Amino acid sequence: MQRYFMTADTPQLGQTFTLDSEAAHHVIRVMRMVVGDKIEVVFNEQVAFQAKIKFVDGKQVTVQLEKSLVSQSELPCTVTIVCGVSKKDKAEWIVQKGTEMGASQFVFFMSQYGVAKWDEKKQPKKQERLAKIALEAARQSHRLSVPEVVILPNLKAVTLLAKDTGIVAYEEAAKQGETAQLVKQVQQMKTGQHLVAVFGPEGGLAPAEVALLENAAFVPVGLGPRILRAETAPLYLLAALSVIWELQ
Amino acid sequence: MQRYFMTADTPQLGQTFTLDSEAAHHVIRVMRMVVGDKIEVVFNEQVAFQAKIKFVDGKQVTVQLEKSLVSQSELPCTVTIVCGVSKKDKAEWIVQKGTEMGASQFVFFMSQYGVAKWDEKKQPKKQERLAKIALEAARQSHRLSVPEVVILPNLKAVTLLAKDTGIVAYEEAAKQGETAQLVKQVQQMKTGQHLVAVFGPEGGLAPAEVALLENAAFVPVGLGPRILRAETAPLYLLAALSVIWELQ
Repeated sequence: MQRYFMTADTPQLGQTFTLDSEAAHHVIRVMRMVVGDKIEVVFNEQVAFQAKIKFVDGKQVTVQLEKSLVSQSELPCTVTIVCGVSKKDKAEWIVQKGTEMGASQFVFFMSQYGVAKWDEKKQPKKQERLAKIALEAARQSHRLSVPEVVILPNLKAVTLLAKDTGIVAYEEAAKQGETAQLVKQVQQMKTGQHLVAVFGPEGGLAPAEVALLENAAFVPVGLGPRILRAETAPLYLLAALSVIWELQ
Repeated sequence: MQRYFMTADTPQLGQTFTLDSEAAHHVIRVMRMVVGDKIEVVFNEQVAFQAKIKFVDGKQVTVQLEKSLVSQSELPCTVTIVCGVSKKDKAEWIVQKGTEMGASQFVFFMSQYGVAKWDEKKQPKKQERLAKIALEAARQSHRLSVPEVVILPNLKAVTLLAKDTGIVAYEEAAKQGETAQLVKQVQQMKTGQHLVAVFGPEGGLAPAEVALLENAAFVPVGLGPRILRAETAPLYLLAALSVIWELQ
């Protein structure tokens, strides 16, 4: 069932609610739904309902909240995925798949040594496009929240992000056979805490960049013995977090 | 360093070796390498060397094996990823990323209920293309073996595949809160054993298909509480296997 996110306080079960214009457009034009069709609506406090379309009036869609949906589709801790900017559509791919796998926020930064740069003037458009991809993926994967997308000018700004635990995926750590830190760092986290995980751009982080992160309490971790591409490593992490936090 | 796979028995360190024509073409035309440049060569028994280009003669490239490379880039068990056929380039994507994350073999089958079908006449070309993607990904991620790509006509043929442990990713299992089976099934496997993991096409497996697999000793497992797309689920599994088998 198609899911929509409303930036509104949670109404009571049984109430009617008028969708915002973006959702209404999607319901009418993209999904071509009509009165009687059902959707899912999620409100600010991550509360989800099944809702039935009661009226379609021009560009307005009014629904009635007919059933509370209980779902545990969020990871127990919030996770910010921080990536160096890479070429082509890799950022889009990271946001789409990362949303599906439970990330709470995506941060992209210009690495001093990265081959790709995003022109400062184009950044607002880029941010807007990535936010739209996050919204679409959150709808499809029935998330309870839409991950935020942020672009930061450099790694220094990344070190200032608030966190309970910080890790940096570092290939050299993996090469030296480091296999314990990832599990150790994330296993000690408590429900509701916030993990910030940093990934380099294509070509990886420079030792000086890793040192900067270490000084800001980011712990270098290995992600297994294989060489993962810049866009694959964040997905490895998110799956690992699910296994460590949600399975067994 | 660029890596090439030779279907030949392993020569001695110090010996010279003439690359096969596909690798030679790649060295000369794609990488534009010259005498003195270095590559990595892997032989049948998954033994890897660093090698120096000694002669380039027309379309022939001869290298000298100058250093043994010790690497543990393979998962401790072999893993066959079996997927229902999906639309668009999802199969290519599964093969590329799955190779990077350590899969040994990819099997695609036509699901009775899947929306996508691969025309029987086009299957050899499809197989060839996917095998090429596996080769390229194995080179880039420095694997010690190139995963095989197989197309099977139906799910019945999948049930006949040899295995030590079989699992099937089943969304209904996840919805019912099944969180223990994945770890349980793969944790009891011993080094060198063979895991076959089945994933449905877009839209998932039908209950009758899951029953057929259960009769053939495939255990339904949940992959966490989020709804994963057909092409994301195999990557979740491969990362999970790495965490369970290789980390901690």
